[in-house]
Amino acid sequence: MRIKVLTLFPEIVKGPLDVSIIKNAQEKGLIDIEYINIRDFSDSKHKKVDDYPYGGGAGMIMTPQPIFDCYQAAIKDVMANNEDIRTIYCSPKGKVFNQELALNLAKEDSLIFICGHYEGIDQRVIDSLVTDEISIGDYVLTGGELPVAVIIDAVARLIPGVLGQEESFQEESFYSGLLEYPHYTRPYDFRGLEVPSVLSSGNHKEIEKWRRKKSLEITFERRPDLLENASLSDEDKKTLDFLKKHS
Amino acid sequence: MRIKVLTLFPEIVKGPLDVSIIKNAQEKGLIDIEYINIRDFSDSKHKKVDDYPYGGGAGMIMTPQPIFDCYQAAIKDVMANNEDIRTIYCSPKGKVFNQELALNLAKEDSLIFICGHYEGIDQRVIDSLVTDEISIGDYVLTGGELPVAVIIDAVARLIPGVLGQEESFQEESFYSGLLEYPHYTRPYDFRGLEVPSVLSSGNHKEIEKWRRKKSLEITFERRPDLLENASLSDEDKKTLDFLKKHS
Repeated sequence: MRIKVLTLFPEIVKGPLDVSIIKNAQEKGLIDIEYINIRDFSDSKHKKVDDYPYGGGAGMIMTPQPIFDCYQAAIKDVMANNEDIRTIYCSPKGKVFNQELALNLAKEDSLIFICGHYEGIDQRVIDSLVTDEISIGDYVLTGGELPVAVIIDAVARLIPGVLGQEESFQEESFYSGLLEYPHYTRPYDFRGLEVPSVLSSGNHKEIEKWRRKKSLEITFERRPDLLENASLSDEDKKTLDFLKKHS
Repeated sequence: MRIKVLTLFPEIVKGPLDVSIIKNAQEKGLIDIEYINIRDFSDSKHKKVDDYPYGGGAGMIMTPQPIFDCYQAAIKDVMANNEDIRTIYCSPKGKVFNQELALNLAKEDSLIFICGHYEGIDQRVIDSLVTDEISIGDYVLTGGELPVAVIIDAVARLIPGVLGQEESFQEESFYSGLLEYPHYTRPYDFRGLEVPSVLSSGNHKEIEKWRRKKSLEITFERRPDLLENASLSDEDKKTLDFLKKHS
């Protein structure tokens, strides 16, 4: 996958993605991330990239010219026909990002991200260039760089070969539609705190049963909204009926 | 505010927070962020920090010993009585992060963050040390570092003095319970795309009306769930009735 990130602060996005799993994915050639500084495309004398909002109000708005010209340069070598390139802008107004959208984006060959900063970007950029306005959650951040890093991280790990073992992402939360069961590792007895005994029983069927029950319990307790779209067996439904009766 | 971040990858969290607004906040002494590497506290010969999960399965789990000992060292100089320190761990199982929770955390004097990596951390750490298990959204990431950076960014900007102008965060999305109106800046005519004329009218009352209407329209269209908790005037309710009739 080819990713281009258009930003005033390449280091914010690059830093977290040049470490650990995503770093390895880039070294293996599974993803290629290019950071392009929007400021380099400003045609003003002092490389200005923002201005006051029309109509007044606090904060500065990123002007359209540097972003449009940066975008034109970025798409040029991705493909001749730019109409197919998903172009993502992060803002609290966007479609709420979730694992389903991450899986959908992971199928693309190329992605372009435009990072807003300050109070936001001129709406004409969003209307003309952006195909996906995405929100990573209902909170306000100082800029669009961290959300872009979050989306790239979530998408990149779904690309085949990025995670060491294929199953590593299949068991996780939101893949099965339930929250994940608790994890334990050695030592068995840590300062008086013991691991649930079933996990060291060697009885794989019982372990699976315990884990499924825990997943259902945690999801029921914390995020019952997720149960609506989870795929549940008859056994799962019995467990949930029991939980409902005893809550 | 004093923040301590316990992590195996300090650079992932530190990178994005050492730039722009949050960098200035640290330089001004409004927040103090310390990064403590959990690996330094491993008492194993090879500074091992993870092990296989009890009960089998893919991925490695962070062992309790280095985290417990790192935590003890971290809280020692925050306060004598550690019971009051909010200790945050990020996972998709946590309480969903939103602007309300950010405002709540922004009132604390000290925060401790524990970053998970690999498949997660031993549940005994969460049960014993963590006061707030938080999810930044319904998606899976390669580690807990980016979510921690996101939470610190969202919280830090709410601390008085961090943003240049006090009003800068008061107008934004989720503060008023609605999504934000679109922003425009110069030039008025950018390659044939014009700014909505009301914004250059100089009529502040009309500008406010237009912005409120746009906020309501965008929220109604994209996130009707937010309208339930928004504070709406009689005029707002009329606008929404109109939108409902014509949608």
